[in-house]
Amino acid sequence: MDKPIGIIDSGYGGLTVATEMMRQLPKESIYYVGDSKRCPYGPRTVEEVRRFTWEMINHLLEYEVKMLVIACNTATAVVLQEAREKLAIPVVGVIQPGAISAMKVTNNQHIAVIGTSGTIKSNAYPYALEAISENVKVESLACPLFVPLVEQGIVAGEEAEGIVEESLAPIKDGQFDTLILGCTHYPLLKPLIEAYLPSHVNVISSGEETAREVSSVLFHQSLNRKAAEAPTHQFFTTGAAKPFEEFARKRLSLFPAKVESITFEHRLKIER
Amino acid sequence: MDKPIGIIDSGYGGLTVATEMMRQLPKESIYYVGDSKRCPYGPRTVEEVRRFTWEMINHLLEYEVKMLVIACNTATAVVLQEAREKLAIPVVGVIQPGAISAMKVTNNQHIAVIGTSGTIKSNAYPYALEAISENVKVESLACPLFVPLVEQGIVAGEEAEGIVEESLAPIKDGQFDTLILGCTHYPLLKPLIEAYLPSHVNVISSGEETAREVSSVLFHQSLNRKAAEAPTHQFFTTGAAKPFEEFARKRLSLFPAKVESITFEHRLKIER
Repeated sequence: MDKPIGIIDSGYGGLTVATEMMRQLPKESIYYVGDSKRCPYGPRTVEEVRRFTWEMINHLLEYEVKMLVIACNTATAVVLQEAREKLAIPVVGVIQPGAISAMKVTNNQHIAVIGTSGTIKSNAYPYALEAISENVKVESLACPLFVPLVEQGIVAGEEAEGIVEESLAPIKDGQFDTLILGCTHYPLLKPLIEAYLPSHVNVISSGEETAREVSSVLFHQSLNRKAAEAPTHQFFTTGAAKPFEEFARKRLSLFPAKVESITFEHRLKIER
Repeated sequence: MDKPIGIIDSGYGGLTVATEMMRQLPKESIYYVGDSKRCPYGPRTVEEVRRFTWEMINHLLEYEVKMLVIACNTATAVVLQEAREKLAIPVVGVIQPGAISAMKVTNNQHIAVIGTSGTIKSNAYPYALEAISENVKVESLACPLFVPLVEQGIVAGEEAEGIVEESLAPIKDGQFDTLILGCTHYPLLKPLIEAYLPSHVNVISSGEETAREVSSVLFHQSLNRKAAEAPTHQFFTTGAAKPFEEFARKRLSLFPAKVESITFEHRLKIER
């Protein structure tokens, strides 16, 4: 199956998933859509998140992607189940891989989750964890300032440190031994988060775990790319192409050859 | 789906997978068959491994298992593909989860694999790793003394240390940063293996990774057990029940309530 894998995200965050997929699955082609113009999704209504997410999915379906990765926790919480039911291709979200991995590493069955207000309100992580174990204790905390911070490219320095410390203060003395970064933007703040929390806390990054999950699904469904030629990657953003490219290069050492700025509204008009 | 998950192994080794499954998936019921009487499988012919493995699978199918875990690397190398084609339930082997996980943690794309002679000769790990990445470097080493050692319950002390050191000497100075324990018996020797190798080497245990993979497959196929009652576990061995029970209790802190000694020959006679 030489078709690309599609990734969608509210903005730059899913690039942490894309980076990990390129590292763990170097033969696969990746087509990415980031909705930077309308980011963050956290404070949006469920109906908006649903509509925006389907616009991105429909864009990627035109390229015949063989699998879809919803690399945004808010969108996963709202659309995953529906997308799995409606699409003929496998759909992987970012919530389950993080939850499964947390169950693997926790020793005291006490897990903390941080995410956007939307993800935390959806209770998607407690639900996923409790579906696996009755004895797990989950505490959740919304960190609404993290996404805007990362989208501005501020991932180190005093301002970022201050916001990380202030945001995490309510759970600092918690008894959890595992923290799930329940937002794909957060891995970019991982060094600051790890520095602030006690050193015994395992920090689970959605990006790494989702890439690992994608690898499993490719194998189980015999979808691994077998072509000898190098894979091709294509990035689309609803924002401007240049800052997207700069962000990818500077923050993630990704060198996206092609970044195309797209407008769903425009596309819809043409199609009608 | 309240049916049990089936696990088969050449002997005690798969108990490391069972232990991890009970920890990571505490709601699931597990039915286990260990072929201790004919262990180890490593030096057996492919035809023998094939026949013995199908005897175990057929035993578990009578209990209507909803998923099958081939928790033996030798049996996975020989039978996984065939079992996936012939059975209507999902089949998970131990090779792919270890390979996928190694790709996740390696930084230098140089991975070592140790296993039984059968597993190493099959080249199953290099094949699985190279299917994922062209640039991965794999070195393999057979450690034929490890399984008999573990089956005798010798997992610490001078004798075990000596055998671990002697067996691993050929790869001691390798440049790999990740070692796959390509045999489910080996996690019981993990402390000795880690003590002997340089501390920067990531040691990947099939048991943990396979349990994590099972968790993913349960979710993707909507097979998670939802019953409120506690799960039931049942252990079968072709050897004697007592040493099996003792091994599980002493080495893995497992307390198998029911261990039944079974004979495939006998069963076949009755069925005919």
